[in-house]
Amino acid sequence: MNNNRQWLLKARPEGMIGTEHFELVTSAIPEPAAGQALIKTLMLSFDPAMRGWVEDEPSYLPPVAIGEPMRASGVGQVIRSNNPELPVGSLVQGMLNWQEYSLADPSSGWMPRPLPAQVTPSMALSVLGGTSLTAYFGLLEIGQPVAGETVLVSGAAGATGSVVAQIARLKGCRVIGIAGGEEKCQWLQQDCKIPEVIDYQKQNLKDELARRCADGINVFFDNVGGDTLEAGIEHMADFGRIVMCGAISGYNDASPAPGPRNMMKVITRRLRLQGFIMMDFMDRMEEAYRDLGQWVAAGEIAWREDIQQGFENIPSTLLRLYDGRNQGKQLLQLAEPSH
Amino acid sequence: MNNNRQWLLKARPEGMIGTEHFELVTSAIPEPAAGQALIKTLMLSFDPAMRGWVEDEPSYLPPVAIGEPMRASGVGQVIRSNNPELPVGSLVQGMLNWQEYSLADPSSGWMPRPLPAQVTPSMALSVLGGTSLTAYFGLLEIGQPVAGETVLVSGAAGATGSVVAQIARLKGCRVIGIAGGEEKCQWLQQDCKIPEVIDYQKQNLKDELARRCADGINVFFDNVGGDTLEAGIEHMADFGRIVMCGAISGYNDASPAPGPRNMMKVITRRLRLQGFIMMDFMDRMEEAYRDLGQWVAAGEIAWREDIQQGFENIPSTLLRLYDGRNQGKQLLQLAEPSH
Repeated sequence: MNNNRQWLLKARPEGMIGTEHFELVTSAIPEPAAGQALIKTLMLSFDPAMRGWVEDEPSYLPPVAIGEPMRASGVGQVIRSNNPELPVGSLVQGMLNWQEYSLADPSSGWMPRPLPAQVTPSMALSVLGGTSLTAYFGLLEIGQPVAGETVLVSGAAGATGSVVAQIARLKGCRVIGIAGGEEKCQWLQQDCKIPEVIDYQKQNLKDELARRCADGINVFFDNVGGDTLEAGIEHMADFGRIVMCGAISGYNDASPAPGPRNMMKVITRRLRLQGFIMMDFMDRMEEAYRDLGQWVAAGEIAWREDIQQGFENIPSTLLRLYDGRNQGKQLLQLAEPSH
Repeated sequence: MNNNRQWLLKARPEGMIGTEHFELVTSAIPEPAAGQALIKTLMLSFDPAMRGWVEDEPSYLPPVAIGEPMRASGVGQVIRSNNPELPVGSLVQGMLNWQEYSLADPSSGWMPRPLPAQVTPSMALSVLGGTSLTAYFGLLEIGQPVAGETVLVSGAAGATGSVVAQIARLKGCRVIGIAGGEEKCQWLQQDCKIPEVIDYQKQNLKDELARRCADGINVFFDNVGGDTLEAGIEHMADFGRIVMCGAISGYNDASPAPGPRNMMKVITRRLRLQGFIMMDFMDRMEEAYRDLGQWVAAGEIAWREDIQQGFENIPSTLLRLYDGRNQGKQLLQLAEPSH
């Protein structure tokens, strides 16, 4: 057990990402130098946006280089330390990447954040993690819903979408969720208390929106893109806001699919389509943690975690996001914290 | 001369609009009743958005009905009046439609506005008309340019685009105009003082944008849509704003063309695409008239008018907008004011 296993990016996918794009390598566990600390990865988070990180194109984060460990956020535990801010045994979160051990090194600018007390590793990466922060700021700051308005959420059973739908409900909006499959729709209705759900696998999305949204959609939080975005645009109310959060339907296309055919409606209905990423709100995280923490403590927000096991299953776990197999926030556990 | 000629909408176009979609009819000139005034049309304005007004689909204005005179803004002169607010001889502007005479009737809610002193009919419909108000509010309120930023304008030699480009220049921005043909490009450079112009007929738009906009476009005022919109999105800077004003490239498509393939960039670059129409700013017209009037008086804004002649040429004059034959704001004169 004195080896560090890593999954490196071996090749850039064109089209669907697969396990063949990653390579398992083994090296010695690094020794923490002065000021550094050694962190053991306990749990990793899997997010649809990771597909974009392996594209060979500058974006809001630099592309993961070939031969580097795949970038991923996670929770770890400090097991050796030459840094008083990172005491041995403490739990931390940050970009731990697909590897069993990493070195925190303040001089290189990378320092993981301590986990708040009473927050478990999985909660830190699920209902209090990046997807919930994305939901919080995207809905409230970009979408700006007003009580009584109609909010449409695609990918509504996903980690981000389900929190969006529930925050919109808590803010007094009428919420319509789009999800795929009976199980996800039932979970939204029963656990998340979102009575109006469209099962896009069984129902015709355009017909359902036409039937339910005669007065128009005020806020559309879109995680899916493609035809779903086009269908939503078609039924927006005047001055509606479209929160452009993700486009999972197209992440694995070899060449990008055509965009919405009805962009003229953006003009005639005076719509606002706005993209954002969670990191833009870094300096306002405290308010999100405060509100999310209160809702979780009060039992007002349901969530679920899909926790896979085992270092060797990391690449295949990522694929679960793109065929919709995951049931809740996709995580993978490498180890239990030691006490 | 006691007949009223009108061009009625005869059929809805599918695809390219043509003279065959309108029908010339002649009826008696109406008599103004109590409170009404009879207005003689002097000049009509032609705008790309008129293609949308004949679509059989509810929009920001109701569709022009089959058998009704085509909707159009214009300038007229009061020739008979039972209304002290509309004295005989006064010049007015408003929706006069494609007809030689119309009745102003305050009880029906429709009253044309008086022309300010020293404003000629053509100026009221060109540099002080709806296209300039669209340019003013679209650029400043939706685009929110900051001095030093890069502003891209498509349809830059058009009535709206040329005023956008010049206001952006007056606000201290770097301006890049896109126009078709040497004559339009020279006019932009020499008269409008926009040194950077891309001639999309001669140059490759994507290559030119890549070459000129390495640091990204902060505001894109788009009048064209389609491939031009896609090319602009490709080179937007982080947090860039796209003012969705028009999409003339697609107005006459029988079925809507696919939208931009690169909508993912809206997310990763945190772009804002926002549609608007000038009427949304109705209660703030005075500030636009004040600023535009000052710029015009100081010779800071160049404009030109393409004035066709003759009632019988009204439908064919509309078509000039869609093949780019118009050189400046498209107008048509029916009569001179009488003194």
